[in-house]
Amino acid sequence: MKVAVLGYGTVGVGVYEMLQAAEGFEAGPVLVRPGKEDKPFKVSSIDAITGDKSVDAVAEVMGGVEPAFTYALASIRAGKHFVTSNKALVAAKGVELFKAAREAGVAFLFSAACGGGVPFLHNLARARETDSLLSVGGILNGTTNYMLDRMQGEGMDYAEALKEAQKLGYAEADPTADVTGLDALRKIMLACAVAWGTLPQEGLLNEGIDSLTAADVEDFLSRGWTCRLIAGGSLADDDSVAAYVEPVLLSRGEAECAVLRNNNLARYVGQNSGLIAMIGQGAGRYPTASAVLRDLSGIRQGECAMFPPKVSNGAANNSRESHVYYVRLPKEAAGSLPLQEVLAEDDDLVRALTEKISVKQMHEAVAALRTEGNSVFFAAVREA
Amino acid sequence: MKVAVLGYGTVGVGVYEMLQAAEGFEAGPVLVRPGKEDKPFKVSSIDAITGDKSVDAVAEVMGGVEPAFTYALASIRAGKHFVTSNKALVAAKGVELFKAAREAGVAFLFSAACGGGVPFLHNLARARETDSLLSVGGILNGTTNYMLDRMQGEGMDYAEALKEAQKLGYAEADPTADVTGLDALRKIMLACAVAWGTLPQEGLLNEGIDSLTAADVEDFLSRGWTCRLIAGGSLADDDSVAAYVEPVLLSRGEAECAVLRNNNLARYVGQNSGLIAMIGQGAGRYPTASAVLRDLSGIRQGECAMFPPKVSNGAANNSRESHVYYVRLPKEAAGSLPLQEVLAEDDDLVRALTEKISVKQMHEAVAALRTEGNSVFFAAVREA
Repeated sequence: MKVAVLGYGTVGVGVYEMLQAAEGFEAGPVLVRPGKEDKPFKVSSIDAITGDKSVDAVAEVMGGVEPAFTYALASIRAGKHFVTSNKALVAAKGVELFKAAREAGVAFLFSAACGGGVPFLHNLARARETDSLLSVGGILNGTTNYMLDRMQGEGMDYAEALKEAQKLGYAEADPTADVTGLDALRKIMLACAVAWGTLPQEGLLNEGIDSLTAADVEDFLSRGWTCRLIAGGSLADDDSVAAYVEPVLLSRGEAECAVLRNNNLARYVGQNSGLIAMIGQGAGRYPTASAVLRDLSGIRQGECAMFPPKVSNGAANNSRESHVYYVRLPKEAAGSLPLQEVLAEDDDLVRALTEKISVKQMHEAVAALRTEGNSVFFAAVREA
Repeated sequence: MKVAVLGYGTVGVGVYEMLQAAEGFEAGPVLVRPGKEDKPFKVSSIDAITGDKSVDAVAEVMGGVEPAFTYALASIRAGKHFVTSNKALVAAKGVELFKAAREAGVAFLFSAACGGGVPFLHNLARARETDSLLSVGGILNGTTNYMLDRMQGEGMDYAEALKEAQKLGYAEADPTADVTGLDALRKIMLACAVAWGTLPQEGLLNEGIDSLTAADVEDFLSRGWTCRLIAGGSLADDDSVAAYVEPVLLSRGEAECAVLRNNNLARYVGQNSGLIAMIGQGAGRYPTASAVLRDLSGIRQGECAMFPPKVSNGAANNSRESHVYYVRLPKEAAGSLPLQEVLAEDDDLVRALTEKISVKQMHEAVAALRTEGNSVFFAAVREA
């Protein structure tokens, strides 16, 4: 199988190298930006790939919706199997790509777009065939997990932890998508679509770790909690899908607490299988490339889709899952949340637990407080 | 796909029920012992299954090598795909069954035989195609994990923990295979064969938890260690395969310490993927049945084998992996092991750490001590 690669950054180099080493594969042309064609295998026009009859499959690892989407459609319509690690692309355009791939009779797989090296989506798709999936989720962003690990393990403050993550290449120069939970949200969108056929485009909620301070960490550690940024998705009786990202406080001893550095933990609950959790590197050159290669290998074995046949875009309903939330906010704003217990207060700040309220209610209440200029941190408290 | 089921115990009932519920499957006849055919779908002769042209696949969940092996061969030779949860069968006869299945042009899958509901072997087989696997292993026996969890969490002694495990149906009336590590050994044998094509039949070593006392637990807990029964397999430069089971002492915070009750954690390290760990129910009706159903679904997608084409029986080499061991033994026997540090001693017993010695050397030295009538507990100490 001859595979062209779109993009030659961190992951692209890994995919190209693995293609050269793997039995039964041939590394095809690599698409780079015009002016960057410094080797014979590099091309700068997608036409050089879509027009090359010897190319069987295209692996896209550029990131971003455009021009990736245009290139993806062109590749699929040219009859190439299409594999991608690009969560922004699949979260925004997954249904369109799926339909185009079905029409063209080619495979469309994207394991590497959720969980990096963790073979999560493949297993989710496989489990769906014979089990009912009740929930999906987990730690799906390695950058923020690294930062949380450093802040909780080493007492670093947020800025320090971010700087270190950037120095190690875990965080982008612009880390917004990671620290706001948007990256994890895109991944849980994909998991929902694989599990239940709904790719939610509206009603999504993401709270990241960008409000977290060293004082917050000190406080919840002293109460026996560890914080992880967790994405959640679930199916309700009315077939509506919840999909959101928020910090969660866990009692020590939970599996998520053992997920250190930039690792991911992706999990699903099947009616029959029970809870299945998978831990591994959620990003990085070779882990991500290994997921791309597993998909390509799957295509050779006949795998062709991760989404179920009737996948469609839809809306998330985050008003039926409820949690008790830990919250830190200015004293004068405390009255605007339904608090059940004040944990600590000083002249300026209150730390408290809310009553059990819906994800939607909590995220919206905090958004309103922030609009008024309040600084707020919150995290769901997972019941032991 | 019409699937016959061999065995109607805990797992068999689960498989039959899931077949009835799953789309695209039909539950075929179920083989039971003569005299137990109390429902029209139950038969007591394998001929009623092998001779039934409408049966596409056979799911064997009886356990034990015979008559399962005879039935397996008959099913395969009759052109039925063959799926099993039976680790004793595959550990002893896997290579023969694989060859028979290839000759007959049918699938032979056995995900449920290692890790129960954890989709480990399937992913191992998939990863092998494009990555080099360096090691396999983990917590592969739920019964002993449950017992260890109770002994360490609740201060139970061994007999109490075993009785509770039996009461809950986690341990057999004869728990020997579980508590001696033999069950976990069979599973790691399968993982080695899937990863590297060698199904080790000789040179295998298994130490269980049947020597563990409440006093041992108290001692290593006080030193910050948690004990898990861990199976290990690895490939050396000379292509020899290590395969063994032994208790391991872990520092708190390791992922294995978060594996509670009767859960399993199965892991592999790929050259490119890095460490991938999977956690879930290692046994039980529906988790195990869900693994059987996933295999059957895989067959419909074209999956046909877990072993690599050139699989063969072979020998394990456990002399090249070395660990520091924690050991508790009679004072007068202490001189027979290469100790580097005494941790505690009284008039009768010594607790100590050995020098770094090979798995083979340690297991053989303790076997010799026991032959002389000494009571010994040992566990490898995992370096943090």
